[in-house]
This record gives sequence, structure tokens and C-alpha cells, in this order.
Amino acid sequence: MSFTLWFMGRPAAGKSTLAKQVETVLRERGVRLENLDGDEIRTNLHPDLGFTKEERAINNRRTAFISKLLNRNGIATIVAMITPFRDAQQTAREIVEEHANFVLIYVKCSVETAANRDPKGLYERAKSGKIDNFTGVSHPFQEPIKPDIIIDAETQSVDECVKEVLDHVEARDIIDETPSEDYEFDITRRREAEIKSRLEDLGYLE
Amino acid sequence: MSFTLWFMGRPAAGKSTLAKQVETVLRERGVRLENLDGDEIRTNLHPDLGFTKEERAINNRRTAFISKLLNRNGIATIVAMITPFRDAQQTAREIVEEHANFVLIYVKCSVETAANRDPKGLYERAKSGKIDNFTGVSHPFQEPIKPDIIIDAETQSVDECVKEVLDHVEARDIIDETPSEDYEFDITRRREAEIKSRLEDLGYLE
Repeated sequence: MSFTLWFMGRPAAGKSTLAKQVETVLRERGVRLENLDGDEIRTNLHPDLGFTKEERAINNRRTAFISKLLNRNGIATIVAMITPFRDAQQTAREIVEEHANFVLIYVKCSVETAANRDPKGLYERAKSGKIDNFTGVSHPFQEPIKPDIIIDAETQSVDECVKEVLDHVEARDIIDETPSEDYEFDITRRREAEIKSRLEDLGYLE
Repeated sequence: MSFTLWFMGRPAAGKSTLAKQVETVLRERGVRLENLDGDEIRTNLHPDLGFTKEERAINNRRTAFISKLLNRNGIATIVAMITPFRDAQQTAREIVEEHANFVLIYVKCSVETAANRDPKGLYERAKSGKIDNFTGVSHPFQEPIKPDIIIDAETQSVDECVKEVLDHVEARDIIDETPSEDYEFDITRRREAEIKSRLEDLGYLE
């Protein structure tokens, strides 16, 4: 079974940064995976979708569905999305768990710290009323009830956070079940049986 | 590079039947693929989406995007969708061809023959005004300008149609580039380098 790592948390908590770092490490280890970047999903799938509670639920549900399609074909996924509502967190889990492991990672950071970082200046604009439905300012954020991991993104360094995620994934032993890209070599049908029988002779396939 | 087989044509032309048969044959050959069934996509991705020209374009574009995500991870896809508008046919091709081969298969069948088959009784309901925007009755159908394959689903048997699709795909030599499921054996990282070097010694990896 493959897996989905779903990073949730407030805007500017560090979800995307953390997701990208974890992606890099896993790719280096040969894990086949897709980073379902929140912005890419919105741009390509539903550019007109807004940020009401209902629209966020749709965004989360569609992403979970795409994640499921990839996971059931052995491609792991990484998602970084605010996912501020508990019912949507649970729905995402249910959709993915039909075929794969779901790891809900709560990237925890206070509004104050996130607003101080605010790399895109979003909190500033939200506070002056220029953005509607902004999580933590003009829209709710519900902490998850049972996340698989809680990452303290307030005081820990990025490296410490990455390590925590990887340690958890390692402990659950879900990584090695994904085939390495090394095994995607270009091969003809004619050679398949031959190679397989050779590997069996060598004792690699039991 | 992986591939998308995109079956288009009028309602009841036989797209889904043909798509399922081709899926079965390819799976038996070990091709890793996903059948992006039109109904499943609508149910899971956008149950509220309707059938205007604009909404059909959205349906086609989202499906092509999901197809691209799967294809770029080595998972082939099969799509069966009416795709009645030329600009949407072209958009689907452009999205998929970023990362993979796109095969547009026009399942050709006259309105009369399709309406006579009409397994779901849709033509009947459309003619009596119970379905809006029904392709070929109350909504346009544009034949593709440059399909990769035209299947005569009017006079040919299903088996003949399947063979034609497979012959084309075979001739384009896109199947063998997809790794077989046989190579998804469960393997530890420790053994990877060893096996790879052994395969190189044996001359299987050049």
C-alpha cells in the first residue's frame, strides 16, 4: 500500500516548505511520488473555486480523490493544504484510506507567529480587509482531533520538523512498500521472463 | 513516456465497452493503468457539474489534468468521454502531451445507430425533452479534425474495434515503455544497488 502525507495548518505555518523538504528526501530514497501542490491544484483543476467553507471542502475532497487515484497505482503523494475544517480532514482520510495509508500532519503554529513570518504578506492584507475568508483572521481554523503527527513549527527548525515526519513514516514502515524509480528501466516484454527467471535463480525473488 | 487512450464519440457509440475491453487486454499484459471512467470522475470530482459546453470543457480539462498526473508517474490511463467539442479535444491533447503520448480514438457511429442501441434509454428521454443538452439531439457534436484512430463502431464487432486500437498502440510502440507490474516486487533498499549492479553485469541495463 502506498501513502499520502497530508500537511495541514494555518497560512504561513510552514506546510509547503516542510512538504518540499520531505519530498526531496523521499525522492532521493527512490520513492515514486507526486507533490500535489495546493496552488497547482487550484490553478489546473478549479481556478474559479473560492474560499468559503463549502469551497474549501470541495478543494480538499477533489485533492483526496486525485491522491487516491495515484496511491492505488503505487504513487505516493504529498499534499500541503490549510484544511481548516474537521469534517474535511476526516473526509480526506476516508477517501485515501480506501486504498492507502493516510498520514495527517498538523503543522502547528500560532496565528501570531505565522502572521509575523507571513512571507506573502497575506495576514497584513487580510487584517486590512483586502482578503475575505482568511483562515485565522476572518475564517475559522479547527485544530485536528486526531492528527497522526503534530509538528511544533513554532519553535523547531525546519530540519527538526522534517526529521520528525520522516521518523514517523519510517516507524509506520510504509515507505519501503513503494517501488523505487530505479526499477522503471526501459525493458521489452521479450526480456521480462528472462530477467525474472534470472533474478529467481539468484535468489532475489522469493 | 506513458500514454492516455482517450475514447470520444456520441452517447451509446460504444466508448465505455471498448475502453473496458482494451483495459482488460492491457492489464493482462502487465501494463499499469487507470480507467478514468467518465461517470466515476463526475461522481467523485464534480457531482454538480452540468452539461453545457462550458461545463463539458471543464470536465474534459480536469480529466486531462488527472491523466497527466498519472501519466507522468508512469501510470497509463484510459478515458471514455463524449468530448463533443473540438477545442476541448485539442486542450486535452495539449495537457497530456506535456508528459505523455495522447491517443485520440474517435468511436464513430451515426446518431441513428446509437439511438437504436441506446442501452440506457437516453436518446428516448432526450427526444421527449426530458434531458437538456443531449449530444446529437439537443447539443452539438463536432467530429474530431485529426483523431489518431477512427473506429467504425457502426458495422464492426467489438472484437474488431479492440484489435484496431491495440494494433495502433502497438505500432506506435508506446506500450513497452510502461513498466510491468511484475517489477513491483517488494524489495529492501539494501538489496537495490546489489541487484542493479548484477543486472548491469548480465548486460540487461545498458
